[in-house]
Amino acid sequence: MNKSRLGPEALLFPTPSVLVGAMVDGRANFMTAAWCGIASSKPPAISVAIRGERHTLKGIRANAEFSINVPSASMVEQVDFCGIYSGRKVDKSKVFDLFAGDLKHAPMVASCPVNLECRLRHTLDLGAHTLIVGEVIQTHVNESCLTDGKPDATKVDPLVYAMGTGSYHRLGEVVGMAFSIGKKRKGGKK
Amino acid sequence: MNKSRLGPEALLFPTPSVLVGAMVDGRANFMTAAWCGIASSKPPAISVAIRGERHTLKGIRANAEFSINVPSASMVEQVDFCGIYSGRKVDKSKVFDLFAGDLKHAPMVASCPVNLECRLRHTLDLGAHTLIVGEVIQTHVNESCLTDGKPDATKVDPLVYAMGTGSYHRLGEVVGMAFSIGKKRKGGKK
Repeated sequence: MNKSRLGPEALLFPTPSVLVGAMVDGRANFMTAAWCGIASSKPPAISVAIRGERHTLKGIRANAEFSINVPSASMVEQVDFCGIYSGRKVDKSKVFDLFAGDLKHAPMVASCPVNLECRLRHTLDLGAHTLIVGEVIQTHVNESCLTDGKPDATKVDPLVYAMGTGSYHRLGEVVGMAFSIGKKRKGGKK
Repeated sequence: MNKSRLGPEALLFPTPSVLVGAMVDGRANFMTAAWCGIASSKPPAISVAIRGERHTLKGIRANAEFSINVPSASMVEQVDFCGIYSGRKVDKSKVFDLFAGDLKHAPMVASCPVNLECRLRHTLDLGAHTLIVGEVIQTHVNESCLTDGKPDATKVDPLVYAMGTGSYHRLGEVVGMAFSIGKKRKGGKK
């Protein structure tokens, strides 16, 4: 296996592609983020890396509340739109139908099948990006995306983002089930 | 759109599925992590949420170094194996062919097409999980996964993990290109 050394790069495959919602100067705003991950289960927490100069970050710092909205693949055009244009120049409060939950400053996108209301808990200034960690206060899922009461990824039909190529994908074929397919092995190399 | 309120849940679609490598008590160990995300571009940094009691976390705390290894979909059985069994009970240093980079305590998996060597920079104890943030010191990519010198997701063929169903997927069809498909819109709802 010949390896190429690329130098230090923030490279990960795949990443999600979500809409981060916040109230900025009294108006709902949404930015697209691929650098998002789960940070803890109990209390449930989520992390997002946001460039320091972002309009959305200003609102999150001001109100200590934000939302994470998981779009479906059919929303790719709107999602990419929110990643290209800044809320400083474009009013993104009109791109989607919105709804409110328990928090006052966490506007959510009705058409996104999964929505998390988050309260800001930690802010790590890492350089170009600030990593924000929010505690999930409430989770909203489209009823049509539940199977036996649980969120079903194939019904959510999420956007999958691929760095490098910069392509948005659908979920592909299932290659195995977690905590199951690995039991076949007894260890050792193939 | 009827929404169901599920209460506070750490829910995100999709997540990656990576192998976190560390030296624990002098032996290489690898754990599977889906709660991994990019934390910053400059300096490049990556975050991973790890349960407090994990064997791998012990090694990362001790040496302040670790690796992130992005497996290809064909490695699903080995990846799941490393998520089921703890390094306390199973010697996972023999599951893969390993290679070393610049850091002394960041063992890497040769068969994974993308490998990041990381130096621990921040540790956030959030409750059930500790969020570790590492600066990427060096990036290794299989030459066969580069297109014009850049990492190509379709060649990497990464594992995509779906919470809820707990299924491993391949990348699916391309539905659009970032910073491009969104330009068609002028704003406003569809």
